[in-house]
This record gives sequence, C-alpha cells and structure tokens, in this order.
Amino acid sequence: MRKEYMMTPGPTPVPAEVLLSQARPMFHHRTPVFTELLIAVEEGLKYVFETKNDVLMFSASGTGVMESAVANLLSAGDKVICCSNGKFGDRLVKINEAYGIDVIKLVYEWDQVVNPDDIKRELDANPDIKAVFVVQSETSTGVLSDIKTIGSIVKDYAAVLVVDSITGIGAVECKTDEWNLDVVMTGSQKGLMMPPGLACVSVSDKAWAAVEKSTLPKFYFSWKKSADSLHKSAPTTPFTPPVSLIVGLGEALRLMREEGLENIIRRHAILADAARKGSEAMGLKLFAPAEGRGNAVTPVWVPEGVDGGKLVKLLKEKYGITIAGGQDHLKGKIFRIGHLGYFDKFDIMTTLAGVEMVLSELGYPVTLGMGVQAAEKVFMENAF
Amino acid sequence: MRKEYMMTPGPTPVPAEVLLSQARPMFHHRTPVFTELLIAVEEGLKYVFETKNDVLMFSASGTGVMESAVANLLSAGDKVICCSNGKFGDRLVKINEAYGIDVIKLVYEWDQVVNPDDIKRELDANPDIKAVFVVQSETSTGVLSDIKTIGSIVKDYAAVLVVDSITGIGAVECKTDEWNLDVVMTGSQKGLMMPPGLACVSVSDKAWAAVEKSTLPKFYFSWKKSADSLHKSAPTTPFTPPVSLIVGLGEALRLMREEGLENIIRRHAILADAARKGSEAMGLKLFAPAEGRGNAVTPVWVPEGVDGGKLVKLLKEKYGITIAGGQDHLKGKIFRIGHLGYFDKFDIMTTLAGVEMVLSELGYPVTLGMGVQAAEKVFMENAF
Repeated sequence: MRKEYMMTPGPTPVPAEVLLSQARPMFHHRTPVFTELLIAVEEGLKYVFETKNDVLMFSASGTGVMESAVANLLSAGDKVICCSNGKFGDRLVKINEAYGIDVIKLVYEWDQVVNPDDIKRELDANPDIKAVFVVQSETSTGVLSDIKTIGSIVKDYAAVLVVDSITGIGAVECKTDEWNLDVVMTGSQKGLMMPPGLACVSVSDKAWAAVEKSTLPKFYFSWKKSADSLHKSAPTTPFTPPVSLIVGLGEALRLMREEGLENIIRRHAILADAARKGSEAMGLKLFAPAEGRGNAVTPVWVPEGVDGGKLVKLLKEKYGITIAGGQDHLKGKIFRIGHLGYFDKFDIMTTLAGVEMVLSELGYPVTLGMGVQAAEKVFMENAF
Repeated sequence: MRKEYMMTPGPTPVPAEVLLSQARPMFHHRTPVFTELLIAVEEGLKYVFETKNDVLMFSASGTGVMESAVANLLSAGDKVICCSNGKFGDRLVKINEAYGIDVIKLVYEWDQVVNPDDIKRELDANPDIKAVFVVQSETSTGVLSDIKTIGSIVKDYAAVLVVDSITGIGAVECKTDEWNLDVVMTGSQKGLMMPPGLACVSVSDKAWAAVEKSTLPKFYFSWKKSADSLHKSAPTTPFTPPVSLIVGLGEALRLMREEGLENIIRRHAILADAARKGSEAMGLKLFAPAEGRGNAVTPVWVPEGVDGGKLVKLLKEKYGITIAGGQDHLKGKIFRIGHLGYFDKFDIMTTLAGVEMVLSELGYPVTLGMGVQAAEKVFMENAF
C-alpha cells in the first residue's frame, strides 16, 4: 500500500464530496432541475469572481476559453498588447497570432512580473489598441502580476483588459469589478477544486461593446450565444453542457461559499508562506521575485549539484508525491510545489518532508525536519 | 419515492460503473498512468469507429467538434455541400457560414433522407467543392441517411466527406474505413454511454491532406496539435484533458468491447424495432420514412386531438419518464423515444407503458397494453 499525493498546480486534488457528486445519475439539461443547478452555479461563480458580470461556462480546457476571448473580442488585423512572462503568456501570443491579430509583445524574463508602466506606454503610443492580454498568476512560474494596477491603467483607454486568472481565481485576490477587469478567465481544475473540463469567463459591459464589433469567426465559443441562453427566463446553455462536471462544480462552489472567499484566499496565502519559508529553511532559493509571489504554486530553484529531473522522479517513485518540474527552458532547473484549491496544512508538510528526504538522498546537505519546522511555525502563528 | 427514467437521445443514461469510475481520485495527466489510459481509450475509439485513422478527442460538446471540422479542413471562401434534413444539418450550415464558407445547401424536409444522387450532381457541377457535410442520424428526427452510398460517391472526388455521426456511432453501423468516411464525429453522451463533455473525431489521410491547405484560424481545436501529441512516444494531449471524463470513457469503452460492436448495433436495432412496433400498435404513426429509420431514437407523430406538449409533460410529472418532444417547427407535433446507448428491453417497455397510460388519460382511444404487447413479441422473436 502506498498513498498517492498530487501536489501539482493543475489538475489539483478534488474533494471526495465533489468527485462523488458527479456520480449522480445522468439527467437531461433541458429540465427545471438543470436550470436550478445552472442558476446556483452562476451565482457561485459570480461570488468567486467578485463580479456582477455574467460568467459564461464552456466545456473546454483553459486554452479554449483563452481562444474564446480572442475570437469574441477582435477582428483580423486588430492590434493588441500581450504581456508574456511565462508559458501561458506565450500561449496568449500564439493564439492571437493564429487569428491574424497584430500583437505588440511585452516580453519579460520568466522570473519577472509584468510592468504596468510598459502597458501604459504602449497604450499611449498606440491609441488603436483593442485589447490588453495579461496572465495574473503564471502557472509555469508562480509569478503574480499586479492586475489591480493594470486594471486602473487600462480602464482609461478604449482597450479591453483580458486577464488569464486560470490559477488566480480562488487562490489570490481577483476583484473583477472593483479592479476594472473586463474579461477574467479560469479553468475548473484549479482554485475551483474540480476535475478539468470546464472553463469560465466573465465579460464586462466594455467587453460586450467590443464583442459587437468583432468579426472573427466563432460558433461554439460564441459569448453571445452563451449569454443569450443564460438570460432566458429558464437559463440554459446553447449546446449540451457537461452535466456531470456542472453538478461537481455546484458542489465545489457550495464548499467554497461555506468556507468564504476571504478565508480561502487567506488560507492560500498562509499555505504559500509555509511552502516558501519551508523551502528557504532547507537552504533553497525561491524562483519568483519578492514583488510577485503568488499563492497558487511555489517554484523553487533546484540546488546546484542536484538533478532536477531525478528529484521529481524520486519523490514520485519512492514517496508517491507528484510535484511539477519546470516547463520549457526551466525544465530540470526548478520544481514547483502546488497548493492551489483543495490544500490544507499537512499537504504542505507532506511535500516539504518528501523534498527534504529526497534532497538528502541526492547528496544535498539538508538537516532533516528543518523545512517542516519552518512551516509549522508559520501555521502556529497564523491559525486558519 | 418515484424513480426517474431518462429516455432521451442525449444526454443518455450512464451505467453506474461509468458514473462511479469518474469518482477516481484526480491524477495528473502528464504521467504514465494517464498515458496508459489514453492509449486504451484511443484503441477503444478506433474499435467503435471501425477505423485505423486517429480518433482525436476534445473537451467540448458535439457542436465544438463539428466546428473543428470546418476550421481544420477549410479556408475562407471555400465551397462545400451541406446536406440538411434536420436541426443538426441546419447547424452544419450555420457553422460553415460563420466561417465565411460558400455553402451549397441541399435542403430536405425533416422527414426525408438525404439523397446521394443530389450530392453526386452537385459534385459534378462544382469540381471546386472542398467538402461534403452530412448528418448520418438526425437526433432531431431519428432519420438515418445512407452514408455508405454517399461515401462510395464522394471517394471519387477531391472533396472530403464529413459525417456527423453524433447519434450514429454505437447505435447504427458506421464503418469509417470500409465506407470511405473521411471525417466522422461523435459526442460522449450518446452511443458511448457517457456524460456529455467529450467529443471525438476521426481523420482520414485524404482529410489530413485538406488540413495542410486550410488557413482558417484555429488553436484549441487544432487537429494537428492533437495528433502531434497523440503520436508522441508517450501519447498525450496538447492541453489539459478532462481527466475524469476520460476515465469514464475508458470504462464505457471496456463495457462496449465486452458486449461487442456487432451485438451493440443488433441490440439497438431490436430496441428500435420494438419502439416502432409498439408505437404503431397504439395506432400511432411513425415520423421517419421507411427508408431511413435509425436505431437511436424513434420519433412518433402526436395523434390528432392530443396536445404534444401535455403528453411529454404528463409523462414526466406523473410517471417520471423524460422523453424528448419535437424541435423547432416540430415542437408539440412529434415526440421522440430515445434508445441510444445504455438501453435494454424493459426501458422500451417502460416508455411504451407510460405513453399508453398518458395517451389514455389525454382522451386518445388506446387499448392499454397493446404497445407493450407488440414490443414483447419483438423481443421474444429476437433474443439478445
């Protein structure tokens, strides 16, 4: 017998209540039962997104809903800003380019935050910019960009602000309305504590005005079709929805409301603090810069002399703990401790204890228990 | 206590084994466990599609994968034939038009099959036609078109044949390779006995050649990205897959292989025969023409003097049986008995018995038990 621990930033662990809720016998989606579920889920999503805007749902991965933002807001040849400081910023660039969009790239090193001043400069220099794309929390690096400040800048321009908050929502603050975030996207397998397969996007009035002008082809991902169905007297979806996933999301949102959004975000902040302090107590260096450390995932430099691939592999094979390695050029150079969604104190302890043992086995000089000790201190000082 | 019976052509009932398999604790998709699952699912899909072609999977509804066929095969301004004899044929037209495709519409009444000769005539008259879109089994009407003959025609032209077999696969014969069907699509919530949320598409070599020339924008639904990931030494998906749904599909395909495709199709044929004979024994008229009656759903004319809406409503409210009414202009005029996927003899009995009682209550002169009697005879003469 060996227990398995999935400490990755997506997919993330799913509460048993949610897993089992999906085993509910199938029911038809053109029924009052589904309508009632959809209304509850929609309300729950608005609560989590902190918005009065519609939150549209699609049967898709996060990438699908990223693409929907391009297809619904823009026309071929439109000019946009894409901020890229990691793998998912890169993907935003690629999607825009696939649609023939003229992309002004603001490219940063992967350990840097997006600089809001750069966005302001480009907006001033290019009054025809239609949209600004930015990733709030880069899953690839854990780096958190300041979308509050970016929102306060973009609101004064014609451009629509599109925020990939796929690993942000439910882990860090993302005040959609208060911060003037026109379009905010997330995926189910992240802070929402769900299996992958559902993606959500909120759309502001400013964004809807852009939708009216968009001529890029779309059908399945049409925000208008989705909103029209949602606004019917008996809210529904334009196409057959993934019923079992929506049942699961209903249960997950119920759990989230029970805990309360503020408490959820505070919990993530404390978990992240413990993961960071625990890593540093082992003598390891954090990857993300002090000004941009998110609460979804803690990326850590693999210490010199240690093979990063071996670290991840041994942790999995010997102790059943799955963490994420680095992506693209960071492969083997960093490892990432996930603490996004359904995570509690002893999940952090488990990962830290596992990393301590594996580092020691790989010849790195670590005093066993020091990482865990640091985490314990964080938890004792910050009850939740 | 009242049991609920979902007798609709999608979503369809899901076996408890499949529902519960999805409650398996979440695991990461970049792991050998997922790779092994993906390989098994891919093999199972090839078995069900009767093809050696890749069967690509997307987290989407059937409409998403219909759109993927347009986006991956065509370029703006291309000319195609769309055959439309129902709601989903109409949708194929709309999707093509949304992408700026020049559509030659072959429009039929909803109670007619697609005429292969019409396709041949248009192909001869328009040598620049890039694709022919046809629905095998119209969910809206149960009408089955002869895609075998259509395949034997289109194979001699440059055009690619795209078959919406969303309610075909797993209910009626759909011999992808033998019949020269270049692109075949299905959704999980149909013959595959799954919840909605996954859509699959098989792609022939002829279709891949068309993909090479296509310039329409695509990213999430890119067949190339999907196939490239599938062909890696450790097969995977380009974007986070809906893990729990794929686990469920693995279980559903296991059940299907256990029963055997021939047996599955034979079972559907017998169930459909019983539904038809049972309906006729009540004095009701079948909607679909004799030359095109599918095995997925049996559409029946609501008898004169009976309110079709009331029939469906009473069946649901009084007896817990959900059947589908007519769609669009057939609303209130027909009702549809689903028998697609996880259906057995007594599901047909249940629906027929319910319809008998409700018709009687609505003042239609029916001798109770006559529909069921006719179905019993079918089952006694055709064991499975």
